[in-house]
Amino acid sequence: METLFSDRAKNIVASEIREILKLTSKEGIISFAGGLPAPELFPYQQLKSISREVLDSMGPAALQYNTTEGYEPLREKIAERMTNQGMKTSADDVLITNGSQQGLDFAGKIFLNPNDIVLCESPSYLGAINAFRAYGCDFVEVDTDEDGMVMASLEEKLKTVENVKFIYVIPNFQNPTGRTWTLERRKELMALANKYNKVIIEDNPYGELRYEGEAVASLRSMDTEGRVVYLGTFSKTFCPGLRIGWVTASPTLLNKFILVKQGADLQTNSMSQRELDLFLEQNDFDAHIQTLIALYKKRRDIMVDAIESYFPKHVSYGKPHGGLFLWVTVPEGIDTKVLLDKAVDLGVAYVPGVSFFPSGMTKNTMRLNFSNMNEEKIVEGIKILGKLLE
Amino acid sequence: METLFSDRAKNIVASEIREILKLTSKEGIISFAGGLPAPELFPYQQLKSISREVLDSMGPAALQYNTTEGYEPLREKIAERMTNQGMKTSADDVLITNGSQQGLDFAGKIFLNPNDIVLCESPSYLGAINAFRAYGCDFVEVDTDEDGMVMASLEEKLKTVENVKFIYVIPNFQNPTGRTWTLERRKELMALANKYNKVIIEDNPYGELRYEGEAVASLRSMDTEGRVVYLGTFSKTFCPGLRIGWVTASPTLLNKFILVKQGADLQTNSMSQRELDLFLEQNDFDAHIQTLIALYKKRRDIMVDAIESYFPKHVSYGKPHGGLFLWVTVPEGIDTKVLLDKAVDLGVAYVPGVSFFPSGMTKNTMRLNFSNMNEEKIVEGIKILGKLLE
Repeated sequence: METLFSDRAKNIVASEIREILKLTSKEGIISFAGGLPAPELFPYQQLKSISREVLDSMGPAALQYNTTEGYEPLREKIAERMTNQGMKTSADDVLITNGSQQGLDFAGKIFLNPNDIVLCESPSYLGAINAFRAYGCDFVEVDTDEDGMVMASLEEKLKTVENVKFIYVIPNFQNPTGRTWTLERRKELMALANKYNKVIIEDNPYGELRYEGEAVASLRSMDTEGRVVYLGTFSKTFCPGLRIGWVTASPTLLNKFILVKQGADLQTNSMSQRELDLFLEQNDFDAHIQTLIALYKKRRDIMVDAIESYFPKHVSYGKPHGGLFLWVTVPEGIDTKVLLDKAVDLGVAYVPGVSFFPSGMTKNTMRLNFSNMNEEKIVEGIKILGKLLE
Repeated sequence: METLFSDRAKNIVASEIREILKLTSKEGIISFAGGLPAPELFPYQQLKSISREVLDSMGPAALQYNTTEGYEPLREKIAERMTNQGMKTSADDVLITNGSQQGLDFAGKIFLNPNDIVLCESPSYLGAINAFRAYGCDFVEVDTDEDGMVMASLEEKLKTVENVKFIYVIPNFQNPTGRTWTLERRKELMALANKYNKVIIEDNPYGELRYEGEAVASLRSMDTEGRVVYLGTFSKTFCPGLRIGWVTASPTLLNKFILVKQGADLQTNSMSQRELDLFLEQNDFDAHIQTLIALYKKRRDIMVDAIESYFPKHVSYGKPHGGLFLWVTVPEGIDTKVLLDKAVDLGVAYVPGVSFFPSGMTKNTMRLNFSNMNEEKIVEGIKILGKLLE
């Protein structure tokens, strides 16, 4: 049957991270590999009464077909939160998706012809790369530093690379580097996107998980020409298993996303949308996020301290101001993919950085997740990795 | 921004049915338009305790990321049901999707290049047509009669039409016609698919809702070469709002579906999969389906009787042996799309048949849903339509 596959299907291959995560899901392993939030903070106790209340008050309507756009009260609440974050938004500007991953897939579907180019940060989120690649595009990596994309590198690509459709960025606590773009860089990105007429996909799964410093204005808040597609999610602030994210964009663009959603799966889960809505209704969501922040900040600090204590001095890393990941650079010559086998044998897992470079060029980096393991395991795992790196 | 859209995005336009359903959702209208199951039979009372039990027994794990393939106990139960229906299936052969609509979208993604051809029944399910069309394909309609596709017509297309990738069929209680393929036709279809090396997409959302006669063997059960992709769903037998369907196919094909699912939205809702699994665990699902059958059979009979009593004699229709739809043919010269405006003014809605013909050629048909309105409204609505058709 393979001869009947579409050309694009040939681009859809198993991601390395998927195989790694399988490898690392074995019992007892200390995993810094996945991007899993801490399950002990999922509000599952509240959900017990909430799901009952939803069914009591709405009856079977909570289980019937729903509009493609999503449950309106939830869209209103999302719009209100976004407005409070400096992005004037109404419910009509919001489409509920199955996590922000679905928004990424839709962006690929809406913008990418085969051989079109996506400009992305170097490195960038593997799941986005895979979602876009399914539409037959290629990637051109833009240099990054501690402040975000390097604008000279971006403008050079915009000038010289043909068929660029959009620029994909994660400006807050980027996956995998944990870095956050400065306001200046964001302004410059907007100016360049306007000048060269490109769409921006602003992926913001971690923005609300800030452990220090002040929030920086989103690209969407600076968008005067309707060229930013903003992707949000409750996977990191509520729970991932209910698969609720959203897309906000100008009416022209959002309308296309809605139509794509209709063909893709009609709508997001009716029941889960109502449960999340009632949770937001009954709880102080910002206070809930503060609880997450307290735990994750502690875990970040413990990981940083452990790295300082146990990693050799020739290893460098960035201390992220938020999010879930810490990015480590080991001396050139060490291939972290080769090292992983040994690490797993010793009971510790991470994601080799190479997976996050579409070019596959950089081999001496690793991404460490600090949200999912408890404090003791973080120290233990870093100790083991430190010995291995010696 | 429209200039930046992909070529395929230009094919993604609002479906007529979507606009019709909006029109017909106004308060008090008697709607035969949607394909909505009867909400009064959704097991929402049981779900109250089930969601609590899931959270009690599994805790936050029910809200965490899950594997892309889906929750294994649920996949096992689906495999067991399929095996009982004559399709030998194991859990590894099953991928959980967001309803079968997502399976349709994935089939398009996996098989269709721009300008490839889909062979489909004439008429066929609008949602599938829209899902496939998003990948830039074209459609060639194959003639149908009361027994399914007309095989001479199919073979002629297979001989003469280039770039056919798959044949899309709904063999049981087809949407929109309500017709069921005979065993003979199914065997012939398989033989032709083997001879001409085409994939078959077998969409079976209504197969378990049979009100009379014996079940006919599925195409998947006759598949000796791994060319049938079978799509199932719980939307019509449990509820649509939890968005749970599945794909079964040969390992080579299913593996591609799994990879596509990963890029598209990572996984289906963790919580809902566990709720459905526990419902299947605790209840006799076949008995539950019998309850649905009893109600829908009654509604079908009432609609048929009302049509006999109130429709003019020059109107013809087919009495379906199952499913949710009844297909009506009015005299040529009556455009049911034009008629719909008047019908809605009088408080009744249906879907004009033209929407189900990719060619848009046939104007004198309509699809009537009998599952969603109560018995009294069915009679009242048919009476009004009958007057209008006089």
